[in-house]
Amino acid sequence: MPHRTRCPVACALDLIGDRWSLLIIRDLMFYGRHEYKDLLAAGENISSNTLSQRLARLTRAGLITSGPHPDSKRRKLYDLTLRGKQLAPSMVALIAWADQHLAPDIPKAQRVLLRQNPQAVIDHALHRKTPLA
Amino acid sequence: MPHRTRCPVACALDLIGDRWSLLIIRDLMFYGRHEYKDLLAAGENISSNTLSQRLARLTRAGLITSGPHPDSKRRKLYDLTLRGKQLAPSMVALIAWADQHLAPDIPKAQRVLLRQNPQAVIDHALHRKTPLA
Repeated sequence: MPHRTRCPVACALDLIGDRWSLLIIRDLMFYGRHEYKDLLAAGENISSNTLSQRLARLTRAGLITSGPHPDSKRRKLYDLTLRGKQLAPSMVALIAWADQHLAPDIPKAQRVLLRQNPQAVIDHALHRKTPLA
Repeated sequence: MPHRTRCPVACALDLIGDRWSLLIIRDLMFYGRHEYKDLLAAGENISSNTLSQRLARLTRAGLITSGPHPDSKRRKLYDLTLRGKQLAPSMVALIAWADQHLAPDIPKAQRVLLRQNPQAVIDHALHRKTPLA
């Protein structure tokens, strides 16, 4: 993908600078949604068309990868690559900002963890496949 | 602005989840671009229409503010509010990710600072009005 400028922020936003891409990364990183149907049902009403397009784009950008599902030849499992997982510090900082300014819904145990030990949330996203919830 | 879901990531992206808004925040945070004409000339070819619309939206969201220019009644100076400045940890983490994965252009002195002391870059964005460069 060509970069319009070489500014690091612009380069990053060329890959992930749209709402849907970041919500897909969120789902893979924190909510354990690794199947197409789970990503489609994630709550923000993404269309199937947009989801397919964004999955393809994130795959081309080397941020996500897909493999066979253990239970079905027709289904795939999506996951973040290491490059994708390494967006965790930025995502966790964004969540902390939202927690401070926008009064979102965050389960109490996760809010306490986020406030007291954000590094643990980052480490979880970097190293585990299980959802945080 | 209504939130479509109460997920913290989705709430944040409702405010800043588009490429242009984050580039404007970048310009105010790191490049000392505080005038309309400087934001317009920032290098990614934003249209005047889009810039006006995003400045209005970011102002409504409480992320930026504008005041009179000391040299001209017709010009304004834009700046981040405290809420906007507090996006610095997330922005700096994104820049560090881009530095690691996308080989962007970063002046050498800033790259060294970013790698060795990212907190200094965050503190700069939170507390100073002068550009980092």
